[in-house]
Amino acid sequence: MSTKTNSIHYTQQDISGLNRITKLKIINAVTGIKPANLIGTIAKDGTTNLAIFSSVVHLGSNPPLLGFIARPSTKEAGHTLQNIKENNVYTINHIHPEFTKQAHYTSAKFDRDISEFDRCRLSEEYIESCKAPFVKESRFKMAMRFKEMISIPLNGTTLVIGELIHLILPDTAIHDGEMDLEKSNSVGISGLNSYYELKKIAQYPYARVNEVPEFN
Amino acid sequence: MSTKTNSIHYTQQDISGLNRITKLKIINAVTGIKPANLIGTIAKDGTTNLAIFSSVVHLGSNPPLLGFIARPSTKEAGHTLQNIKENNVYTINHIHPEFTKQAHYTSAKFDRDISEFDRCRLSEEYIESCKAPFVKESRFKMAMRFKEMISIPLNGTTLVIGELIHLILPDTAIHDGEMDLEKSNSVGISGLNSYYELKKIAQYPYARVNEVPEFN
Repeated sequence: MSTKTNSIHYTQQDISGLNRITKLKIINAVTGIKPANLIGTIAKDGTTNLAIFSSVVHLGSNPPLLGFIARPSTKEAGHTLQNIKENNVYTINHIHPEFTKQAHYTSAKFDRDISEFDRCRLSEEYIESCKAPFVKESRFKMAMRFKEMISIPLNGTTLVIGELIHLILPDTAIHDGEMDLEKSNSVGISGLNSYYELKKIAQYPYARVNEVPEFN
Repeated sequence: MSTKTNSIHYTQQDISGLNRITKLKIINAVTGIKPANLIGTIAKDGTTNLAIFSSVVHLGSNPPLLGFIARPSTKEAGHTLQNIKENNVYTINHIHPEFTKQAHYTSAKFDRDISEFDRCRLSEEYIESCKAPFVKESRFKMAMRFKEMISIPLNGTTLVIGELIHLILPDTAIHDGEMDLEKSNSVGISGLNSYYELKKIAQYPYARVNEVPEFN
């Protein structure tokens, strides 16, 4: 590990030599900011589940597909996957600053018969035609129809893909199709446990080759 | 589309009825905040390529694996994939507020013989043992060894997986393994063209079941 003009350089060897916890913290943070979402599901027996995920990713707009990465080895992701397989539907709910703490603690490894909604004091909300629970406290939420699970043999994780079937958001967050995540008060995550507010600093037009500025 | 106490509800039918551009803008923004990264590659003939991606996602820490979603139908992603296949190595560079505009315009569909580094006035930087160019202006950057491409037949996208082999970041951004993306001045993206600064608002401990607070 060499230090130079206040930058640190970790080589592959440095990284593999880090202790397990430090490595976990660092590698979970290197992608940059991650979206903070709660995924709501329900088991066959009616027990609800709520789990925080920072890996929701846009896959395509037509059809509207979102993915998230689940590690089947963790209890929380395990319950989420099991419930999605049982009911083919789940919700994705943005996290806002006033309930980051409740949201964070949904990551504890509760037994399956305990609902994180109850334990972490978040409220279930239902709409017609969607069996999975939304988070009432969230103002930006989606219902997803499960489409496919793609396993990633390299490390045993799973890419879970769903199609957006309901989108509920504050009207102040959208103008001419442009979303403002500062106005929707959505938060971001870095690593495993740090939460960030967003401040919009720039918006540029769609980049056409013949309209690219001369950056001088 | 029903409006109620300043929230908008789009059903699946509403979404599919949106015009192409509005749908693209909205669906690209619903995940919440996305990391803003530039991926640097080099072709066999030495032409460099730089492309903005908002889909970099953490896959696992041991080994340290990151993924990103590429749509082969777009010219930019096409050049990136082709170069990665040719050289097995690429860089991921955080975007900072002072060069969001240059970064944004790398998304224009330049021909393959034009380097976005030149055209968008960002500087190539090289380290020993890594053929792919870093972005000199970025203070948080990684070199990745290509591991695998997994295709997603549902919509023709590709999940590109790489292993982290170099990590270079400001020493002010990390303390006891905890990353502070406000201090590293990393930015986020929503949709296709909006950029956000980050303000850290909370950090909580690892969530153990027996340490979950009584949220009353």
